[in-house]
Amino acid sequence: MHVLVIGAAGMVGRKLLDRIAGEDGVLGGEVTRLSLVDVVEPIAPQPLAGLSQSFAVDLSDDGAAARLIATRPDMIFHLAAIVSGEAEADFDKGYRVNLDGTRALFDAIRAEGMKSPYRPRVVFASSVAVFGAPFPDKIGDEFFTTPLTSYGTQKAITELLLSDYSRRGIFDGIGIRLPTICIRPGTPNKAASGFFSNILREPLAGKEAVLPVEESVRHWFASPRSAAGFFIHAARLDLEKVGARRNLTMPGLSATVGEEIAALTRVAGDKAARLIRREPDETIRRIVAGWPCDFDAQRAASLGFKAETRFDDIIKAHIEDELGGKV
Amino acid sequence: MHVLVIGAAGMVGRKLLDRIAGEDGVLGGEVTRLSLVDVVEPIAPQPLAGLSQSFAVDLSDDGAAARLIATRPDMIFHLAAIVSGEAEADFDKGYRVNLDGTRALFDAIRAEGMKSPYRPRVVFASSVAVFGAPFPDKIGDEFFTTPLTSYGTQKAITELLLSDYSRRGIFDGIGIRLPTICIRPGTPNKAASGFFSNILREPLAGKEAVLPVEESVRHWFASPRSAAGFFIHAARLDLEKVGARRNLTMPGLSATVGEEIAALTRVAGDKAARLIRREPDETIRRIVAGWPCDFDAQRAASLGFKAETRFDDIIKAHIEDELGGKV
Repeated sequence: MHVLVIGAAGMVGRKLLDRIAGEDGVLGGEVTRLSLVDVVEPIAPQPLAGLSQSFAVDLSDDGAAARLIATRPDMIFHLAAIVSGEAEADFDKGYRVNLDGTRALFDAIRAEGMKSPYRPRVVFASSVAVFGAPFPDKIGDEFFTTPLTSYGTQKAITELLLSDYSRRGIFDGIGIRLPTICIRPGTPNKAASGFFSNILREPLAGKEAVLPVEESVRHWFASPRSAAGFFIHAARLDLEKVGARRNLTMPGLSATVGEEIAALTRVAGDKAARLIRREPDETIRRIVAGWPCDFDAQRAASLGFKAETRFDDIIKAHIEDELGGKV
Repeated sequence: MHVLVIGAAGMVGRKLLDRIAGEDGVLGGEVTRLSLVDVVEPIAPQPLAGLSQSFAVDLSDDGAAARLIATRPDMIFHLAAIVSGEAEADFDKGYRVNLDGTRALFDAIRAEGMKSPYRPRVVFASSVAVFGAPFPDKIGDEFFTTPLTSYGTQKAITELLLSDYSRRGIFDGIGIRLPTICIRPGTPNKAASGFFSNILREPLAGKEAVLPVEESVRHWFASPRSAAGFFIHAARLDLEKVGARRNLTMPGLSATVGEEIAALTRVAGDKAARLIRREPDETIRRIVAGWPCDFDAQRAASLGFKAETRFDDIIKAHIEDELGGKV
């Protein structure tokens, strides 16, 4: 099986690669070739380095998608995107990469299939940013997509294209709407959502973290481990069971900041929790208030997608995967 | 006010022009210039012929949208589209015209506004084809859009773009999801939905018509008069009241074929109804089974959009508008 991962240098991309490299046959067949793409050259996972090739490519560049697809990968994970804040700040770049780049990929698959039969699986990373406030208490699987950012708009448009191209038999697509990933490894970043991870990751490493909102703020989470699991499961899923509606809200865990902190206390003690410094930030508070905070992701659950059900497990996954099992 | 109508040679476009020409100030201001665009040169409505210009233009041609928008129309009605059957048969043409052409229009408005402030109203003709089966008994305003045709996909994508461009202040957009228009004037056409109009229009003119489905088939209707009214109302509406969710399912009338025939009998007598010949067609039956048949269009109703509530009135509107008041 020739596997192409676009966005392979990103956090979720690297988690996915670790899973593919770590477990023989996890994608339902032997990986014989691995093509890794990102705007910076991705690093191949060590066990598969011998059959990997890495490319620094911007999918929206003329001909870039066609060159990648000319190698006829069987399995395509498309995780690359200009993130929310940048797509909002740079209208042209967001639409060019997130919409035109993805459409170029889809059209390259169509063009390749017109030369000789070709119908790869395409697993696309979408986002709960396709939804826009006001929301019901729990967002159901049939709630409409009215994004309030250009990023969310670009994801929602790609979802529509993915369904239509799949319906026409151009490829077998499935869209995965990711929850907010927590605990994000690495260093604190400036994303408005960063504090959800910072207030756990930093104290677990003995460092201070800033909490800019009230403890009552509720949000929708899954661990990086679960995110990688969603993609693996989507790659192997019988799409007949999914039917025409190819974009699925992933299961996740709805929790308040207070519940995050209580879990941190249970797992790592009072001392860790005391490293969280309250510094209310009105701007972040306002941005976060417009985000969805709870879902009823029945379809994905019934199709076998799984995520954590207790915040303690999200923290324990981080300790196991990032801290060598030790706090 | 400079008014641009794209798709001005189509049936709904012509009905809209008649209304604009027939009632001074119907758009909320004096029309001082009227630009009419379609792939064939549209005919200007007589009372406004002196201030009208007609253009045969394909919006998806290089530079076409920019040339139209360089004249800075204040009010833009965008009704042009490759219809459902053709967009399904010709993938490239459907995406080129319905998606790329419309995006070229939106981007031309953005480019014009970057030269000097410019923010027209854009009223876009969408369709209930943005929905795909299975449906609830009545489709509510928050039901998700999972189209089962490329046409519906292109309309749903345009709705997303319209909302995002409006949110960013590029233009003031509003999307109008039209019901099936009935009674379509003219001659029977080959659209799968044609019989809904044929079985009324032809008998009213003393001619036979073919009914390819059972009388129990239910569908969602509005008259051409109501359709023109939707666009006029959308042009004058205070968009502050609409908020961020700019695409509205229009009110309509849910009726079965049997109810259509009963209304025909009431309005034009048994003799007319006897001109309907039953010729079951399995293909048409199957296509129609996938269409939405009832909506609960509360938002549009609360914003003042109006349609017929009795099928007799749909038939009477046709008799008044197309048959000089006489059967």
